[in-house]
Amino acid sequence: MNTFGSRFQVTTFGESHGPAIGCVIDGCPPGLLIDEELIQKELDRRRPGKNPLSSKRNEDDKVEILSGVFEGKATGTPIALIIRNKDTRPEDYEGLRDVFRPGHADRSYLERYGFRDHRGGGRSSGRETAARVAAGAVAKKILSQQGVTVVGHAVQIGSIHAEAFDETEITRNAVSCGDKTAAPLMAEAIIAAQSEKDSIGGIIEILVRGVKPGLGNPVFGKLDALIAYGLFTIGSVKGVEFGAGFAVGCMHGHMNNDQMDSTGYLSNNAGGILGGISTGQEIIVRCAIKPTPSIGMPQKTVGPDGKERMIRISGRHDPCIVPRVIPVAEAMIAIVLADLLAP
Amino acid sequence: MNTFGSRFQVTTFGESHGPAIGCVIDGCPPGLLIDEELIQKELDRRRPGKNPLSSKRNEDDKVEILSGVFEGKATGTPIALIIRNKDTRPEDYEGLRDVFRPGHADRSYLERYGFRDHRGGGRSSGRETAARVAAGAVAKKILSQQGVTVVGHAVQIGSIHAEAFDETEITRNAVSCGDKTAAPLMAEAIIAAQSEKDSIGGIIEILVRGVKPGLGNPVFGKLDALIAYGLFTIGSVKGVEFGAGFAVGCMHGHMNNDQMDSTGYLSNNAGGILGGISTGQEIIVRCAIKPTPSIGMPQKTVGPDGKERMIRISGRHDPCIVPRVIPVAEAMIAIVLADLLAP
Amino acid sequence: MNTFGSRFQVTTFGESHGPAIGCVIDGCPPGLLIDEELIQKELDRRRPGKNPLSSKRNEDDKVEILSGVFEGKATGTPIALIIRNKDTRPEDYEGLRDVFRPGHADRSYLERYGFRDHRGGGRSSGRETAARVAAGAVAKKILSQQGVTVVGHAVQIGSIHAEAFDETEITRNAVSCGDKTAAPLMAEAIIAAQSEKDSIGGIIEILVRGVKPGLGNPVFGKLDALIAYGLFTIGSVKGVEFGAGFAVGCMHGHMNNDQMDSTGYLSNNAGGILGGISTGQEIIVRCAIKPTPSIGMPQKTVGPDGKERMIRISGRHDPCIVPRVIPVAEAMIAIVLADLLAP
Amino acid sequence: MNTFGSRFQVTTFGESHGPAIGCVIDGCPPGLLIDEELIQKELDRRRPGKNPLSSKRNEDDKVEILSGVFEGKATGTPIALIIRNKDTRPEDYEGLRDVFRPGHADRSYLERYGFRDHRGGGRSSGRETAARVAAGAVAKKILSQQGVTVVGHAVQIGSIHAEAFDETEITRNAVSCGDKTAAPLMAEAIIAAQSEKDSIGGIIEILVRGVKPGLGNPVFGKLDALIAYGLFTIGSVKGVEFGAGFAVGCMHGHMNNDQMDSTGYLSNNAGGILGGISTGQEIIVRCAIKPTPSIGMPQKTVGPDGKERMIRISGRHDPCIVPRVIPVAEAMIAIVLADLLAP
Repeated sequence: MNTFGSRFQVTTFGESHGPAIGCVIDGCPPGLLIDEELIQKELDRRRPGKNPLSSKRNEDDKVEILSGVFEGKATGTPIALIIRNKDTRPEDYEGLRDVFRPGHADRSYLERYGFRDHRGGGRSSGRETAARVAAGAVAKKILSQQGVTVVGHAVQIGSIHAEAFDETEITRNAVSCGDKTAAPLMAEAIIAAQSEKDSIGGIIEILVRGVKPGLGNPVFGKLDALIAYGLFTIGSVKGVEFGAGFAVGCMHGHMNNDQMDSTGYLSNNAGGILGGISTGQEIIVRCAIKPTPSIGMPQKTVGPDGKERMIRISGRHDPCIVPRVIPVAEAMIAIVLADLLAP
Repeated sequence: MNTFGSRFQVTTFGESHGPAIGCVIDGCPPGLLIDEELIQKELDRRRPGKNPLSSKRNEDDKVEILSGVFEGKATGTPIALIIRNKDTRPEDYEGLRDVFRPGHADRSYLERYGFRDHRGGGRSSGRETAARVAAGAVAKKILSQQGVTVVGHAVQIGSIHAEAFDETEITRNAVSCGDKTAAPLMAEAIIAAQSEKDSIGGIIEILVRGVKPGLGNPVFGKLDALIAYGLFTIGSVKGVEFGAGFAVGCMHGHMNNDQMDSTGYLSNNAGGILGGISTGQEIIVRCAIKPTPSIGMPQKTVGPDGKERMIRISGRHDPCIVPRVIPVAEAMIAIVLADLLAP
Repeated sequence: MNTFGSRFQVTTFGESHGPAIGCVIDGCPPGLLIDEELIQKELDRRRPGKNPLSSKRNEDDKVEILSGVFEGKATGTPIALIIRNKDTRPEDYEGLRDVFRPGHADRSYLERYGFRDHRGGGRSSGRETAARVAAGAVAKKILSQQGVTVVGHAVQIGSIHAEAFDETEITRNAVSCGDKTAAPLMAEAIIAAQSEKDSIGGIIEILVRGVKPGLGNPVFGKLDALIAYGLFTIGSVKGVEFGAGFAVGCMHGHMNNDQMDSTGYLSNNAGGILGGISTGQEIIVRCAIKPTPSIGMPQKTVGPDGKERMIRISGRHDPCIVPRVIPVAEAMIAIVLADLLAP
Repeated sequence: MNTFGSRFQVTTFGESHGPAIGCVIDGCPPGLLIDEELIQKELDRRRPGKNPLSSKRNEDDKVEILSGVFEGKATGTPIALIIRNKDTRPEDYEGLRDVFRPGHADRSYLERYGFRDHRGGGRSSGRETAARVAAGAVAKKILSQQGVTVVGHAVQIGSIHAEAFDETEITRNAVSCGDKTAAPLMAEAIIAAQSEKDSIGGIIEILVRGVKPGLGNPVFGKLDALIAYGLFTIGSVKGVEFGAGFAVGCMHGHMNNDQMDSTGYLSNNAGGILGGISTGQEIIVRCAIKPTPSIGMPQKTVGPDGKERMIRISGRHDPCIVPRVIPVAEAMIAIVLADLLAP
C-alpha cells in the first residue's frame, strides 16, 4: 500500500539507495499554478545536510516534473515527480547485509518479504518521505487557495519543553521551535546526544488554521482519524493526540467540554474536531517522535542467521530527527486535507 | 465513509433512535463457524444498563443475521446483521432540537450536512459502535483460528492509575481493570463524578498477542497506522500511542531501541511494531478516552439560531465511558487485523 | 466484492432463499426526499409474478428503510434497506444439492468457495438484483434533480428485432419494447420457448439523456468503462456496446467519426462518450442477455461427485429474463452516474 | 482516476508530448525476477514505426526502472518505470490548439477540465497505453508462474473476417491475424484506407488459458465485469463480449447452456466464466475497435470558439489501430488477472 487518499491521491515510490524516489499525484485540480520551484522550496526544508544538527548525506533533492503540468498549470491529469538519488553510498551499508539494526525495520521487513534491500533501509528509509513533502507542496497550494495553512513546530526535545510560542521564531532556529529560550537548549541537547554517539527524541505540534466548520465525515471518515492515520505512516511517530490529548484521561466533563457563547467556542480542548468533523477552530495535533534508531553506541543484536553480535552504526545519521519530521508531518496533514477539500 | 477495510470489509449503518442499527461484513472466509450466539456474547459486553456505572438505557441488543451464513457456516458472501433499537425515547431529545450540546458533534454535524437527526446524536451516537462490536466478534473468530487474541483493560480513570496487571482481574470488576487495588478506586471516582452531575475520562490499553512477525505493509499500510486509524474512528478517543508512546519524546536512542539477542528482542518499547510491520512481540496500544460530554451540570451553549442559553443534560448517560469503550476498541483492532489476515 | 462505487456507494447482501436481501447506500446527498414508496415503485417494475411471461415466484418485495432517512429526508448517513424473502421454497432446491445446473454458477461457486448455498443459486441468484433496483431508485432520484433520465427497452428477443422506437410504447407491453409491431411477436417467441420447456435470449438498449458534457475521467475512470463494468456485474449480460458498437469493426474513420458544426455533433456513433467523457449527446448502450439457463428440457450434467446425470429443472423460472433485466440495467447505470454526479 | 486494481495496482502517468510517460506498479510479489529486458520486449510489440501499416512516429520506447527491483528481483515495494518521450513534435499540433478533431476527446476534455493539453491528445493519446503494456509485462510474468497465458489476435478488419485460427500465424503477419489467408487481405484493406486518407476498424479476440476454476468474486467482483472494465478503459474499444457474446440474443437456452459430462464442459458459449467466476475453460473475449479518428480526409468541425471549419489531420497516425491495440488489450487482461491472482 503505497497510495494515500482517494480524491487527491498520492502514490510514492523509491528506495533510499536506488536510482530515484518520487510520487504520482492524482486529483490535482486543473488550472492550479504549479512549478518545480514551488515543490523545491518545501523539499529544501526537509533536505539533509543543511546544518550541523542533521545528517551529512548530501542530496540536492532536485525535483523533476514528468507529467500533469502544461504551460505552468496543472492539467488535472496525474503529476509525476522524480528526485534522483545522488549521494548514495551502498558500500556504507555492505556491512549491514547480515545484521539487524535495533530500532529499525530490518528484521520485520525480512520477515515480511523473505528478503530485503539492506541499503540504508531501502523503502523503509526516511528518504521516502521526500516524495511526500513534494506531494505536500502541491497539497499546500490547494489549501492556500482556500485560506488554510499548516504550521508545525517542536514542543519538546528530550527533557527540554517549549514554554512559549511565537510563530515567527520557528524559522529562526535549527530546531523549528517557537520558544526562543528553549530553542538553544534543545540544540544543545541534540549536540550532547550526538557527542555520546546517541540520539534523542521529541514531540512536535502541528496547527491547522482556516479550515471551515463541517469538514470530515462520519463514521470511518472522521477528520481526526484520517489525520492520525496520515501521521502514523511516518516511521518515527509513536503517538498522536488532538487538543487536550492524553490529558483528557484525568479530566472531568465540565473541564473538557468546550462550552459556547454567541462569539463561538470558549475553549479548544477538542483540538478543532468534534465527532470527526471540524469545528472551525484551530486544529491542534501533536506527535511523539522517537529518537533516531541509528546510533554509534554499541548495541546487542543478531543477524538473519540468528547469531548474536554487537553493532555500532557509522553512517550519516541525524542525532535528532524532530526538525526534519516537521515538514513531513505538515505534508501528510496537507495531503489529508487536500483529499477532503479537492473538488 | 461508513465502510472500513478492504479484504475484510465492514459497513455500518443506523442511528441511535431510528428503527435499527447494523452492519454488512464482506470478506469473511467461507466455512467459518458463525452464529448469533457468538456475536451476542460480544454485544453483551458492550451493552448498556448492566451495572450502576453505566447508562440506564435498556437495550437487549439482540442481533439477527440476515445473510451470508448457511447451515452454521459463513458462505463467503456478505454477512448482514441488524439490531433493532427498542428503548428509544426520541421525546427525551425533543428539547435538544434547538440547542448544541457541548462536547458533542451537534454543531459540527449541522455545519456539515445542513440539518441533522437531533435524537441522541443520531449517527454520531456511541450506539453505532454496537454494530462494530458485532463485526468485531466475527473478526475475533478469524483471529482466534490463527492464535491471535485481543485484550483491553482500563489503565487510568481520572487520577487513579492501575499499578499492577493481572489479566484475570479484568472481568472481575465493573471498570475492566487488571489491578484489583485500583479497580474499586476507579469505580469510586466514577460514582463521585456522577454524584456531581459530572463525568470522567480515562486511558485504556489493548494488548494483541499471537501476531506473527511480518504483518503490515509499507508505506501507507503500516500496521500501527491502520490500528490508530481504526481507534480514532471511535468518537471518544483523543490520543493513541504504541509501546513507549509519548514517553519517547524524552528518551535517548540507546534507551528506546529494542536490542536483540538469540532469544529475541530484549525490550518492547516499539510496542510490537517496527517500520509498520509486526515484530512478533505483543502489540501494545493505549487510547485516551475523553469524559462523556453529556453531563447534568449547567453549561453555556448556543442553538442553531446563535442565541445563548444554559443546558443541563438529563438523558440516560454513562458517567464514564471507559469500560464500555474497551470492547469497541478491541473490535476495531480485531477488524484491522482480520483485514490483513483474511485470505 | 459486494460494494459498488466510491462516492455514492452501494453494498448489497442476501441470498435468494435466506431471511432477507438488502443494501446499504452510502453517500446519498443530505436533504434528498426519500421514502419507501419511491423505492417500492422501482421494485415493482422488477418484481416477479406480474404477468404470464415471468416467474411464478410470488414475492411482494416490500422494502423497509432501517436508517439514513429522518423526517422524509436523507440525512447523509448510510441508508440501509431490507426486503424480506417470503415465498422461499428451499425444498424445491433440495434435489439440486448434488447436481450442477448447466449455464448456472453452481459449479464455479463450489470451486471458488469449497461449498455453497444450493438454494436457488444463493447469492448468485437474480434475486440479488432487487437490492440494486432499490438502490437504483435512490440514484435515479439524484439524477432526476440534475435533469438526467435513464430509459431501457428491449431491441431484440430471439430472432425478433425492434424496427421502430416509440418511447411511450415501452410500458404498454409485457416485453418493454418500443416497437408496437414487434412487441407481440417477441411475446409469442417467449411463450413458444416456454411451451418447449426452453428459454430465449435478447438484446436491450438503455438511453441516458440529460448528462452534461464533461462527465467521466481519464484514464481508468472512463464513463463508458464504468457503465460497462456496472452492466457486466449483471449475471445474464454477455456483451456490452456503445453507439455504433461492434459495427465499428467494418467502418471507416470518415463514417464513424461524429463531425460537428455550430449546432453540435452531426451524428452519434460514439454513443455520447468520447475519450471516456460525456459529449452531452444521448448515451446509447446495448447489452446482450443470455437465455435463462434454467430450463425444463433434459440436459446432460454432473454432480460434485463427478458422476454424470440428466437434469430437468422444474422450479419457477422466467422463460425470458430480458424484460426483468431492464430495470436492473437502468439501476446499475443510474448508480454509476450518481457515483460521478453526487457532490 | 489513473490507478487500476487493488492488490496488483497500476498507476499510469504522462502525456503524449510531455517529458515522459510511465507507471507505478504496487503489489508485485517479492522475489519475482524482473528486468528492463522483460518489459522492453512487450513494449517493442506495441511500439510505433515498426512496419508500413503503423504510425511514423519514431519512439524507441526505452524503459527505465526507478525502484522496486534489487539485484534482479522485485522487492515487493512499488516498481516505478519511466519511458522518455523523444520524437515529440508539439509544433505539429500547434494548429490543433483551436480546433476539435472529430472522433477524439478534444472537446469532451475541454468541457471536463476547462482547458487542455492540445499536443496530440495529451493524456487521452494512445501513447499512454505504453505504460500499461510495461505494467502488463510484469503482470504476465506473475501469470506465467501460475501457468496462465494471454494471447490476442485480429479476427476482423473492415469487411475481412478471419475464418481460421492457427496461433503460430499471429506473429508472422503485420496484422496479428491467426488466419494466413485473411491476413494479407486485412493488410490490403488497411493500405487501401490509408491511400484514401481514411482509416479502418476491426475486432480483436483475446484468449486466456490456464486459469483454474474458481477465480472471480460475486457480485461486483465478477471476473468478466473486471475484464470488460479493463478493456473499455482502452480509448478505441466500443464493444466487449464474452463467449457467444451478442449472438446469445437470438439463442435458446438449450443451445447456449454449456452441458457437462465427466470429462468436463461440452461447449464454451459462456467464454470460460459463469456467474462471474472462471470455469477452468479458455476465457474468450472480443473487443470492437473503432477506426482511428485521425484521418487526412476533410471533416466538418468547430473550435472552442464555436466557429465552423474544415479539418484535415496531417500528423503521424495509424490507418488501423487494431494490431497495436492487441498488446494493450492483453496487458489490461493480464493486469486484471494479476490483481486477482497476486498473493
